[in-house]
Amino acid sequence: MISQNEIDILTHSLPFWDKLTDLQKELLISSANTSHYKKGNPVHCGDSDCIGILIIKSGTVRTYILSDEGREVTLFRLDDGDVCILSASCILKTITFDVYVDAETDCDIIQISSSVFAKLSTENIHAELFSYKLATERFSDVMWAMQQILFMSFDKRLASFLIDEIAKNGSSTINMTHEQIAKYMGSAREVVSRMLKYFAREGIVSLSRGGIKVLDKDKLRSLTL
Amino acid sequence: MISQNEIDILTHSLPFWDKLTDLQKELLISSANTSHYKKGNPVHCGDSDCIGILIIKSGTVRTYILSDEGREVTLFRLDDGDVCILSASCILKTITFDVYVDAETDCDIIQISSSVFAKLSTENIHAELFSYKLATERFSDVMWAMQQILFMSFDKRLASFLIDEIAKNGSSTINMTHEQIAKYMGSAREVVSRMLKYFAREGIVSLSRGGIKVLDKDKLRSLTL
Repeated sequence: MISQNEIDILTHSLPFWDKLTDLQKELLISSANTSHYKKGNPVHCGDSDCIGILIIKSGTVRTYILSDEGREVTLFRLDDGDVCILSASCILKTITFDVYVDAETDCDIIQISSSVFAKLSTENIHAELFSYKLATERFSDVMWAMQQILFMSFDKRLASFLIDEIAKNGSSTINMTHEQIAKYMGSAREVVSRMLKYFAREGIVSLSRGGIKVLDKDKLRSLTL
Repeated sequence: MISQNEIDILTHSLPFWDKLTDLQKELLISSANTSHYKKGNPVHCGDSDCIGILIIKSGTVRTYILSDEGREVTLFRLDDGDVCILSASCILKTITFDVYVDAETDCDIIQISSSVFAKLSTENIHAELFSYKLATERFSDVMWAMQQILFMSFDKRLASFLIDEIAKNGSSTINMTHEQIAKYMGSAREVVSRMLKYFAREGIVSLSRGGIKVLDKDKLRSLTL
């Protein structure tokens, strides 16, 4: 069972709420539950589970694909109030791929099981439409990521990444190792380190153990153009 | 105006047909038209047009993204009876990217204008659901392409497997089901089938019930390098 605050988040995040019958609303609320995930822990692992629809109550999750050799490519992140549909891919017939979802920060996540959502989707076309609309929104996110990866040269991509990070953090400091950045960008640590050193030499950033400080945001931004 | 044969293709390709009112059916048919595209010609060009829903009557179209520097990355192909939705992306609110579509062979294409389909989608939730379901199907196609491009392993692995098999058999034919191959390779049947279809389209193999014939051994071998 979830709290009243969580019920408010749930009804706010699911635009088809008003189209449900009272019975369907009851089913949704009574079957929902909230879990806490520690930073770095897996939330959903490819085709090994189909845990259902996830509503991010607080925190950030990262969605990525994983190669046979263990290489990760980040597709998109989801924050407070966002809904994760790809963790319920088993109930969307036209989704034939699998992704991984990790807690990027400590997270509280409201979960609606796949079986409950499958029942709602069958009974209520608005619920079904919601899930495919949401999947199409993620399609747009993935296309953006794909264009970043395939078309931008690495200095542009790294500059974009740093700008996004400082915007997200509200601080000019990024507390990530080169290894972590490489993982997020689907690149190698050496490539990231090399480019960061170049940025440092240009006076764009300063580097310290486990951290990067952006010194010249304008110059960094000009690299992304 | 389109021919009776084309009306049959249209009603067959649009699963929401039976859910339309007579007026909506009439609107769809009377506004549809067929165009011929010569091999290599553009059908849809990014954000410069939003020509609507395309039903491939005959031929093959290729969908791709284009970088500022003119680099192309193929996302997927569509054949006879397939429906192209990304050429109507302006009417799908959650699609924020643009693609290019070229005629890969001579093509006859039935077109439903964006304005007509937008009207139908607003009036009829089944038409709207169809468009998002279809977009999600393309999402799966794109994820497949992305994994091939970024991880580049399965085509190599399958090519190696087929070369080993024909060497072992002393014949260019492999009498195994896709399911069996998937088991041997620790993969999924769907993945194997998809890649074999891709090989077939490239003229590398021909497929028949329960069997694969290697047509171009050199091309197959070049994939393993």
